Formats: sequence, C-alpha cells, structure tokens
Amino acid sequence: MPRVAGTDGFMFNHTMIRVKDHNASLKFYQEVLGMTLIDTYPNDDFTLYFLGYDHGGDSVKSGGAANREALIELTHNHGTESDPNFKGYTSGNEEPNRGFGHLAISVPDIEAACARFESLGVPFRKKLTDGRMRNIAFILDPDGYWIEVLPHGFKP
Amino acid sequence: MPRVAGTDGFMFNHTMIRVKDHNASLKFYQEVLGMTLIDTYPNDDFTLYFLGYDHGGDSVKSGGAANREALIELTHNHGTESDPNFKGYTSGNEEPNRGFGHLAISVPDIEAACARFESLGVPFRKKLTDGRMRNIAFILDPDGYWIEVLPHGFKP
Repeated sequence: MPRVAGTDGFMFNHTMIRVKDHNASLKFYQEVLGMTLIDTYPNDDFTLYFLGYDHGGDSVKSGGAANREALIELTHNHGTESDPNFKGYTSGNEEPNRGFGHLAISVPDIEAACARFESLGVPFRKKLTDGRMRNIAFILDPDGYWIEVLPHGFKP
Repeated sequence: MPRVAGTDGFMFNHTMIRVKDHNASLKFYQEVLGMTLIDTYPNDDFTLYFLGYDHGGDSVKSGGAANREALIELTHNHGTESDPNFKGYTSGNEEPNRGFGHLAISVPDIEAACARFESLGVPFRKKLTDGRMRNIAFILDPDGYWIEVLPHGFKP
C-alpha cells in the first residue's frame, strides 16, 4: 500500500518512559526481557538509554538508534533512585492519571515465557490463568509500568 | 549478540495509549503520520485499533498484528468522544502524573516533515527553531500525547 504523500521513510522509532532507578530498569529490560542496550546519552541531569531487540543482521546498530523501529527510551533523572521524597512515576492506568496504557512484547512460547518470568520473581498483574483471556499475561516493570505478553499469531 | 536465554524470538510488539475520539486519532495516525491500520478489534465497550508503518513486503500483515514490532494500539472506550463530562487523558508529562513521556518517529527529511505538519495545522510543542536542539521537533496528537520527530541518523 503506498504511503500517504510526505511520509515515505517514516519509522516508529521509540517509546519513552521515565524510570526511577536506571540500574533496576536496565537489568529488567536486558536480563528479563532480553533487549539489547543500543545507545546511552549521558547529560548533566539525566541520562537516556535506548534498548531494543537484536534480530540479527544490521538491525541493531546500523546508522545509530534513530534508524530503526521498536526501541524503548528510558529516561533516568539523576538522583531519583536514592531520593526518599521521590514518589515514583504513574503507570498511566489509574484514575485520574489515565492515558498511556502499556508496552507489549510478543513471544514464540507464552507458557515458557511466563514460567521463566515467574522463576525470576517478576511481579504479574495478570497471570495466564487469571481472568477470561488465558493466552495473554501482564507483568510489571520496576516502576510498575504494565508490560503485556502475548503469543506470536495472537488474535483477540 | 546472543539473546539472554529464554528470550529468543521476543519482539517489542506495541505501545498502547487511550484516545478520546477514535475518528480524530485514526485520521491523525493514518493521514498525518502515514501509518497503516492493520487490525481492528471491536468489543462491547471499547475498540482496539492497531497501526504501524508499512515498509513493504510481508511486514504489515503476515501472521497478524502480533507478529511484528513497532505498532501502536489505540484504545477507544466507547462514548468518550461525545461525553461532555469526560476530562480527557493525561500525556504523562505533567506533575503529579509523570511517567510515560512520548512516542517518536524518525523521518528522512525533518525540514520537509515539519513543514508538512505545519501546513496540516498540527500543533507543535517544540518547533525545530525552538530551544537549543534545532534538529528535533515535538508535535501533539489529538489527545495531547507528545510525538517526537527526529531525523534518520540522529545523534543527540
């Protein structure tokens, strides 16, 4: 299908969320979800971390983080990780702060993926066996953002 | 780089945001940003719309919306578009509701892309000429979510 004129080459590059503790979040997105840290941009007051899945070939680093899709940008404002007065971030799913909902990953074997998350101690918002839909789950990242887990080929 | 064990085949499938008026949002994401509507899942109380960029080949529809990366899921709770008491959604960028930050698209010619957005009457949060960074812009979607526009090959 041809693109709308003026939008050739547009890519959905990334989704940005703020994180309280960069170490906890980098560990989660790399070691639990299996993403690769592609670029880090330190600034005086904050640091930006770009992560995404390595699908082999040149997909990860060719041309820098701006030249591919499906990245997550973690914004860490320095100091929040150790500030006792920092209240944390909102997930976007609670009134009156609703808006953003979740990130979602799709996986080839959802039973195996969820069993592994359980073994790693990842908190679940919805296990496969909860509720009506038995083929999707929701886990929580270190800030409480919802991450949907759904199988390849999923149809609601 | 090999994946962490247990995460082979994982993909960053989508980012979900709630939208007040599905017609306004579908028009924006398709006609302004140039995404393709890939799947629609109607329910009694809400409808889910999955959109993403068509990069040719089988990328858009092979195996359904769950078998690719970089989609956006728009959740429309029926009735919000005409409910005078509906207060709208939060963008995630204002205190005390901070958390989610923005979506980002990368484009081959950022001057042309921003000139086109201006000609379409899209509101800007940051034009190219605003502030220090002259090679990124932020536009607003119909709900006020921030969308960063950055050039291919961008480096902060």
